[in-house]
Amino acid sequence: MTKDEVQGASEEEQQAQSKKALKKQQKEAEKAAKKAEKQAKLAAEQQSTEEDDFAKDRYGVSAMVQSQQKLDRVLVRVQDLTPEKADQLIWLRARVHTSRAKGKQCFLVLRQQQFNVQALVAVGDRASKQMVKFAANITKDSIQDVELHIERIFVISQAEPRLPLQLEDAVRPDGEGEEEGRATVNQDTKLDNRVIDLRTTTSQAIFRLQSGVCQLFRDTLTKKGFVEIQTPKIISAASEGGANVFTVSYFKTSAYLAQSPQLYKQMCICADFDKVFCVGPVFRAEDSNTHRHLTEFVGLDIELAFNYHYHEVIDSITDTMVQIFKGLRDNFQTEIQTVNKQFPSEPFKFLEPTLRLEYTEAVAMLREAGVEMGDEDDLSTPNEKLLGRLVKEKYDTDFYVLDKYPLAVRPFYTMPDPNNPKYSNSYDMFMRGEEILSGAQRIHDAQLLTERAIHHQIDLEKIKAYIDSFRYGAPPHGGGGIGLERVCMLYLGLHNVRQTSMFPRDPKRLTP
Amino acid sequence: MTKDEVQGASEEEQQAQSKKALKKQQKEAEKAAKKAEKQAKLAAEQQSTEEDDFAKDRYGVSAMVQSQQKLDRVLVRVQDLTPEKADQLIWLRARVHTSRAKGKQCFLVLRQQQFNVQALVAVGDRASKQMVKFAANITKDSIQDVELHIERIFVISQAEPRLPLQLEDAVRPDGEGEEEGRATVNQDTKLDNRVIDLRTTTSQAIFRLQSGVCQLFRDTLTKKGFVEIQTPKIISAASEGGANVFTVSYFKTSAYLAQSPQLYKQMCICADFDKVFCVGPVFRAEDSNTHRHLTEFVGLDIELAFNYHYHEVIDSITDTMVQIFKGLRDNFQTEIQTVNKQFPSEPFKFLEPTLRLEYTEAVAMLREAGVEMGDEDDLSTPNEKLLGRLVKEKYDTDFYVLDKYPLAVRPFYTMPDPNNPKYSNSYDMFMRGEEILSGAQRIHDAQLLTERAIHHQIDLEKIKAYIDSFRYGAPPHGGGGIGLERVCMLYLGLHNVRQTSMFPRDPKRLTP
Repeated sequence: MTKDEVQGASEEEQQAQSKKALKKQQKEAEKAAKKAEKQAKLAAEQQSTEEDDFAKDRYGVSAMVQSQQKLDRVLVRVQDLTPEKADQLIWLRARVHTSRAKGKQCFLVLRQQQFNVQALVAVGDRASKQMVKFAANITKDSIQDVELHIERIFVISQAEPRLPLQLEDAVRPDGEGEEEGRATVNQDTKLDNRVIDLRTTTSQAIFRLQSGVCQLFRDTLTKKGFVEIQTPKIISAASEGGANVFTVSYFKTSAYLAQSPQLYKQMCICADFDKVFCVGPVFRAEDSNTHRHLTEFVGLDIELAFNYHYHEVIDSITDTMVQIFKGLRDNFQTEIQTVNKQFPSEPFKFLEPTLRLEYTEAVAMLREAGVEMGDEDDLSTPNEKLLGRLVKEKYDTDFYVLDKYPLAVRPFYTMPDPNNPKYSNSYDMFMRGEEILSGAQRIHDAQLLTERAIHHQIDLEKIKAYIDSFRYGAPPHGGGGIGLERVCMLYLGLHNVRQTSMFPRDPKRLTP
Repeated sequence: MTKDEVQGASEEEQQAQSKKALKKQQKEAEKAAKKAEKQAKLAAEQQSTEEDDFAKDRYGVSAMVQSQQKLDRVLVRVQDLTPEKADQLIWLRARVHTSRAKGKQCFLVLRQQQFNVQALVAVGDRASKQMVKFAANITKDSIQDVELHIERIFVISQAEPRLPLQLEDAVRPDGEGEEEGRATVNQDTKLDNRVIDLRTTTSQAIFRLQSGVCQLFRDTLTKKGFVEIQTPKIISAASEGGANVFTVSYFKTSAYLAQSPQLYKQMCICADFDKVFCVGPVFRAEDSNTHRHLTEFVGLDIELAFNYHYHEVIDSITDTMVQIFKGLRDNFQTEIQTVNKQFPSEPFKFLEPTLRLEYTEAVAMLREAGVEMGDEDDLSTPNEKLLGRLVKEKYDTDFYVLDKYPLAVRPFYTMPDPNNPKYSNSYDMFMRGEEILSGAQRIHDAQLLTERAIHHQIDLEKIKAYIDSFRYGAPPHGGGGIGLERVCMLYLGLHNVRQTSMFPRDPKRLTP
């Protein structure tokens, strides 16, 4: 991933604002908590005086579930509530999403993940005045066992009276309801209270889709004969040259956090695993405060031996991506549409076979669009995006490969182009104009690798184990590393990678 | 995982020995390299004088594959060599496992991962004297394209003349061939040259089986409706109390490496994901130099909400383990038998449903066997193993659950037993008498959690985000964490966890 413009200033302001907002919310929450306590006391007193509550065993706050007993009771899932169950007596455990009392009735909307159902408790044969009052006072996001025409209602886990953010505010599309003075929740408040924010329909959909991406990635590769490997994250030498690496205290010495599984997946190829993949955290100590950089993210990594040409590797990776796109399109429509409600975007488009452009063609397209750049200059982020738009216009695809990058802008282990020493057998892949994968044919010859490392001024002593792995026969091979959070962000047309990281890490965020 | 006896001293000695052995090997390798160079020169000179080599285009060292061309040539896999291919002209790319020249013939054993095939090159119509000589001189573990009655042979990647260890020595069972003076390779030499060691049939089998364990774990849980999550490894506070944690420099502050995804998977339960799993590295800064401790290993983690009793969680986990055992038994027999050739062991036995014993029963069994221990004492490693043997004798199973541990020996977030305050709703699972999983019902009530944290003298400020996640409604839940390397080691009946870690990390090993 390349370094973007630092957008630190505006984020700092946002952070200050969000802190202020949070403090205010906390104070309000404290107030509300005290008020609720008082009310509960009053209610309890009132109840103890009104000894005539015939329904008093039908509601209440349950004792903490401490596995006291094995109940033979079936709990129905909200999504399984079908018309056939209309006359049945059922039990349900769900959160109180909203509650609205009206005269002798109380309407509750009950929530289970992305599914809601309405329930009613009304004064009558089965429910007393006190029971309806109890229902009306249950705090939002508490969890309870309930029947839909409610006959019994018990609180399993009580939420504090005021949530740090309102779920309906957190899923409101930008700008909607502004005239009515309805709030949206800014990103830092969401991330500061991530456990609540993750309960929204949007977050539930995003992370179910993310789980799907990992599964599709692995299933596709397993079918192709790849072996899953586990590579170490604590390493003795910086894997990609030394900059931007986190240091770890390791007993009496120090070590580093792996910036990628690069060297290890290549060593697995030298160890005859032929085709390997791994899914795991990678760490970048870059002080980049942008919409698409994290200091810790999940890498989907591929490496494989090939026969004669590294385009065999490109074909294997693009086919894997296409299988992911198809799997998401076919099996995750509900999730995609849920996210689209809050963040509208065009459906993701891709071609079969995947479009592959050469770097020189891209430079020509950009020049034609008025960009001034040299043949061997790297692509800036704005130019990447512009190129994405030009490619979309011309080829109608949101996914393509850019092949044959200038050698100068790639890591030392990249195989030079055999026909033109200024270029290399390397490629990036893009989704909606942003890079999601970087890859190449790697140098599999110890001598050439040594020469290139020296050219890049890398301390040979530190990568000795790596270079040595090519001394005892190594097949030609290549691969690439995909950023999981970026794939999810760009597939869904989102605008910040923090939305697709459950507990994001950036230079300014280490919690929760 | 509990702390074992430190076996440091003997390992140090081994290390010193292995260094010595390595130096000797390196010197020998240098000598051999020089010799080979001389021979090659001589051969080249000889060849240039003998201009009558009619086969000179049929063999040689290929130019480095730099993706010069897209060849339309199919390479057949060794495992796909069937009798029907007997009369066909095919190409094959494989390593030279061994070569033996005899008069006008040279026999080569060619290797692809765990598959071997013999090939012959003989002086005649298709091969010249010089070509046979060339074949005989190819260094072991070089990679080449070949035909089985060899008509053409080209070296794709040349191995140095002397491998740092011999593959046939590395797979020799302990003690075998001692009289004939055949060597085995000690563990540190193997690990120092892991790329070569991973090429052995034993290693290939171990890590293919490990890949299978991960796949079976995820597939089983996905079918049960679990969602895969990705949790951060860089955290702001030590997740399990503060000891044994690695420190990371994080820009201008410092952070820690997660000792488990514990707090985060619980936060996902509070965030309504209901049932979650994750597969990823966990880090322990324990200076334990034993056969079963690593400083970095792969955790297979599960967490789920339950309805009324945490035995619902135990059932879910034991069923997952049983599905893994069945999948390995049914789909990985080749791998199991390959490993057994070098490391013989009894087939792994398990019951359905899984045996569940209570801690008090285990203490009684141990006392009956002569062990002196108090009711609330933790199990020592020798007692765990003894208990494993007693359970195997009595119940004929290598896998069981030990339930209801004393509260005092478990982490602060463990739910106390509602009936006896000295015990807890917690459990360990064992394979062949060694612990592979630790788990429990967790406290889902912020107030009780705070009390227990204070009791354990944990700084509340540091776990604020964690405790706060239980303030807004949290379902009763439980889970556990499984050590991947231990599962593979114990399933296969191996004796050191370094055999099932590709690039193991311990207090004394950070490379390769």
